[in-house]
Amino acid sequence: MVPSETLFPLVTVDVALFTVIDDSLRVLLVQRALEPERRRWALPGGMLKPALDGSLEAAARRVLQRKVSVDVAHLEEVCTFSGADRDPRGWSIAVLFCALLQKDQVNALVRDKVEALEWADATNPGHRMAFDHALQLQTALARLRARVAAKALPLHMLPERFTLTQLQRTCEAILGHPLDKSAFRRRLKDSPDLVELDEFVRGAQRPAQLYRAGDGFSFSG
Amino acid sequence: MVPSETLFPLVTVDVALFTVIDDSLRVLLVQRALEPERRRWALPGGMLKPALDGSLEAAARRVLQRKVSVDVAHLEEVCTFSGADRDPRGWSIAVLFCALLQKDQVNALVRDKVEALEWADATNPGHRMAFDHALQLQTALARLRARVAAKALPLHMLPERFTLTQLQRTCEAILGHPLDKSAFRRRLKDSPDLVELDEFVRGAQRPAQLYRAGDGFSFSG
Repeated sequence: MVPSETLFPLVTVDVALFTVIDDSLRVLLVQRALEPERRRWALPGGMLKPALDGSLEAAARRVLQRKVSVDVAHLEEVCTFSGADRDPRGWSIAVLFCALLQKDQVNALVRDKVEALEWADATNPGHRMAFDHALQLQTALARLRARVAAKALPLHMLPERFTLTQLQRTCEAILGHPLDKSAFRRRLKDSPDLVELDEFVRGAQRPAQLYRAGDGFSFSG
Repeated sequence: MVPSETLFPLVTVDVALFTVIDDSLRVLLVQRALEPERRRWALPGGMLKPALDGSLEAAARRVLQRKVSVDVAHLEEVCTFSGADRDPRGWSIAVLFCALLQKDQVNALVRDKVEALEWADATNPGHRMAFDHALQLQTALARLRARVAAKALPLHMLPERFTLTQLQRTCEAILGHPLDKSAFRRRLKDSPDLVELDEFVRGAQRPAQLYRAGDGFSFSG
């Protein structure tokens, strides 16, 4: 079999990396340093390198490591985007991943091989985006919201120890609307995903209890 | 850029095609006519052909059309499987799709370019499967069950007009356990996914009303 561009499409991985900053859901955008779409803002991504990558997920982790020097707490595949028209270099497949970053890791990001990076508003990034990345972002955001609406807890975005108020605010930032505090607390009661700690921080009125993620917790269930 | 197998992985699409026969959830398996894994049972699948396929989903539809001459009512991407070890031909990506077939289409299947086909028990197919297709089947089944457990209605598997008993039996076959009839009926009440028809069929005790899917219904929501 003779490899040719007709037989072998271009394969890239792209990552929608979400965190919450100042109670607002943000996504990491990078400004492309190279053609095509140079200077356009994009989700961090790169070509699959079979010689380096054990899998598509490993490729996504390598790209995040190389472009912004980050290991993410949670990474999951969303879906693929494919066809002849989405990349000027030819028939291509982009495999989109969604990643959740712990708040306290945001400042550790180092920019490398990109012109600039920005934690853009996830619902309104304010840039014309490269390729089909606007659609990819929308798709990843819809998946994230559906998960949280279906009661998954975005603990991977929180520091190791957190209060229930911090957790509620993170869910609200993702969903884009406020949640009823008593209903929210009721459904957390007896959740195996949360472990009560014997530690408290100063709260608005009284000390707030700290929690950690239950052992074996996973956002994707 | 010189295409080579190192740069361009092999890309295939595989389809877990489900239906319900005699109240049991079945998946379509085909016996491979060609190497590698000749004679092994597999999910119907094939190589992506960028010159023919508009997208990966189009490739999945072409494969179903070519191998078993079927157009499916519902086709959705599940996830990818990738790496150097899953196919002896080299570093490969399989994009797995899940498809639901209407019961009354089952007999229309025509076998072509496969040794044999079989509607195997989806939870226990009874064959050693090719490549990582046992894992792919498990993954597609888990996705299908999670959807139905989350109250999606598998209407794409039913004939155009159906009774609520047929719908309940289909859900039970997918989930692998019985459902409480009154709770099931309660949650269907006022569902925009169901349209009551002014038609009845003979039921066990009294005539059973027929329903059809609501306009714009989609299993993936």
